[in-house]
Amino acid sequence: MNLKLNYCNQCGATVSHKIPADDNLPRYICDDCGNIHYQNPRIIAGCIAEWENKILLCRRSIEPRHGLWTLPAGFMENNETTIEGACREAQEEANADVIDSRLFCMFSIPHISQVYMMYLGQLKNGKAHPGAESLEVDLFNEQDIPWDELAFPVITETLKLYYADKLNNNIQVHNGEIIREQNNLIINHY
Amino acid sequence: MNLKLNYCNQCGATVSHKIPADDNLPRYICDDCGNIHYQNPRIIAGCIAEWENKILLCRRSIEPRHGLWTLPAGFMENNETTIEGACREAQEEANADVIDSRLFCMFSIPHISQVYMMYLGQLKNGKAHPGAESLEVDLFNEQDIPWDELAFPVITETLKLYYADKLNNNIQVHNGEIIREQNNLIINHY
Repeated sequence: MNLKLNYCNQCGATVSHKIPADDNLPRYICDDCGNIHYQNPRIIAGCIAEWENKILLCRRSIEPRHGLWTLPAGFMENNETTIEGACREAQEEANADVIDSRLFCMFSIPHISQVYMMYLGQLKNGKAHPGAESLEVDLFNEQDIPWDELAFPVITETLKLYYADKLNNNIQVHNGEIIREQNNLIINHY
Repeated sequence: MNLKLNYCNQCGATVSHKIPADDNLPRYICDDCGNIHYQNPRIIAGCIAEWENKILLCRRSIEPRHGLWTLPAGFMENNETTIEGACREAQEEANADVIDSRLFCMFSIPHISQVYMMYLGQLKNGKAHPGAESLEVDLFNEQDIPWDELAFPVITETLKLYYADKLNNNIQVHNGEIIREQNNLIINHY
């Protein structure tokens, strides 16, 4: 799953893939300056934005999953918090101000080295319109959620947890994982 | 906070720091092949390992904070889950098997582009001994926690939350941030 590296981004020399001293995993190491180029999972921060009894979904204008529906979410940037990342994505994808957010669920997806952190907040004034990465944005009641047209399994799982918690009138914080085994995805909740 | 890059790790050409088309933040972009080198926050996964009424701490044998006490924690690796990362760190730093873990707290630390995810689990058989990165490991009662010799503010905050929850007999999931303003650290809980 690591990206293959060919050159050192510090000195421009070639790199070798080997286990550093005092380590137990292979890393790309510069053949000249010795710099070790670690690679780590990335965080995707996003949110469920509520307005009255509806939630905000965005229809993707970009690949992957062009044309399918998703919760606003995207790669967390350096120098921001997870909640700032979640709110920024709602702003970028749906011009939506999301307030009063709380952590709702966190999923590890190890085969793609991603960790999703999804917040639950309120869509300020109920206002949203498509950003550059969205074909359209809309507010959905539970019975209108396009379950067969959701972009990613983690979005489906997040929404299932949300409506289950709503049914029980008990919003919790959830943690789980989405594992790929052969061609199947296995979803575990801790 | 981004690492300065000089060369493209794919083709070895020089890179320039500029805002890509359809983006709003500067990135390092290869002057030849055009590869965009994104940089994102890293996750530190760790745990509170309980045994009877005590918890496991490790005294660091490495910099930073050599000689100070910490909870087992370290950078999450590609292709693992957060809980696997937390348990692996307990194994590496304290030869400790941690079981029955649940998410306890998550802190963003934006000035160093880190996100801590701390689990709460049980130390199997109460057994631990120092790994390569620890001078010693020990089990502590609350009254014996070396508060003035803890390695990182996020460790202090995690332990404060833990003992507050224990006092209330109500272990929750916590989310917060540690922000640096001038020379002060501000801790916010959402």
